[in-house]
Amino acid sequence: MANIFPYSQVSKNEITMVGSRTFEEFVEEVRRFHSYPAPGVVLGGFMVEKAKTYMPEGVLYNAIAETFSCLADAIQLLTPCTIGNGWLKIIHLGHFALSLCDKSTGEGVRISIDYNRLARYSEIKSWFFKLKPKNEQNEDKLMEEIREAGSWILRTSAVSVNTNDLVLAKKKGVILCPSCGEAYPIEYGPSCMGCQGKGPYVRWSR
Amino acid sequence: MANIFPYSQVSKNEITMVGSRTFEEFVEEVRRFHSYPAPGVVLGGFMVEKAKTYMPEGVLYNAIAETFSCLADAIQLLTPCTIGNGWLKIIHLGHFALSLCDKSTGEGVRISIDYNRLARYSEIKSWFFKLKPKNEQNEDKLMEEIREAGSWILRTSAVSVNTNDLVLAKKKGVILCPSCGEAYPIEYGPSCMGCQGKGPYVRWSR
Repeated sequence: MANIFPYSQVSKNEITMVGSRTFEEFVEEVRRFHSYPAPGVVLGGFMVEKAKTYMPEGVLYNAIAETFSCLADAIQLLTPCTIGNGWLKIIHLGHFALSLCDKSTGEGVRISIDYNRLARYSEIKSWFFKLKPKNEQNEDKLMEEIREAGSWILRTSAVSVNTNDLVLAKKKGVILCPSCGEAYPIEYGPSCMGCQGKGPYVRWSR
Repeated sequence: MANIFPYSQVSKNEITMVGSRTFEEFVEEVRRFHSYPAPGVVLGGFMVEKAKTYMPEGVLYNAIAETFSCLADAIQLLTPCTIGNGWLKIIHLGHFALSLCDKSTGEGVRISIDYNRLARYSEIKSWFFKLKPKNEQNEDKLMEEIREAGSWILRTSAVSVNTNDLVLAKKKGVILCPSCGEAYPIEYGPSCMGCQGKGPYVRWSR
């Protein structure tokens, strides 16, 4: 039995790519941006690159991350979509899944995990399903499994979104809050969201 | 009258810095990450760097952006805080403001705009308050004003947040949704958020 992983993408001697980057280059990029080479961002890299293969050349697309952790950073590193330019939306469902959708048609592709195929990758499986405490994870083995499993453990679905949901609402104007003096979008009501009690601060010395 | 902007940071012959980067380097970095050199991200760079000066060396901090546009990307480019690692939170109040807060104490600094000082910068003022349509903006003049105004048009306040709000909730476990088969955090209820109608897709071919 020459290869117990007949479906695996790579042998140890091959170079694994994440799109146009080598696996090692991408891990380094994740380390710089995300502050540590989180397995979720690294696996997310394969997910983003798989999704990109379904977007025809020249098509402008938006991205949706279905969890607020990890995947958003893979999207921001590997596509033009960022949280700040509004082309990346996080709709937190707690799913380890993402989609890319054509801006003009709403048609797109959703990438998630093929749980059946995780059976071959014990460390990915136990990380993904939180089967053991973090300090018992074998991080090197996890990363090596992700490198080897790559896009083979991914599942692809066709999805479409309402294109209206991809467009950022146009602000109607900006006024100063009569209560605190802070500028805010006029459509938010007679006072700003901070004065409506939505702010994060417990103390604020102006 | 040698200088009609007595408070401005720079003369035309000086090099403007955004932290350790030159203004031009930062603009180029914004162009690469955000896809275009948005004035909000560039001005955001001065805001982030100003906030960082209040964080003592070695202190670990989280960031809050009070708008989902622009500022988040300045934070992600200039601090270790990203949306994917959870150290950046977006609490959308529609305010052009951000804060950095010490992870362990919750104490921090909030940076916003000093509207009075905008009087000297007509193009920033009309961009900020949306006083004219986008196609009538003078983008070169706007960018030059931002370069010149820099951190002089910023306002600083001491804030503090509840440190519990800075911690990501620990997931209790991951199970498969009995309805759709998708993995989701057990604490979300008897079915996943997608099956609870929270998903973004109008069509989904599994």
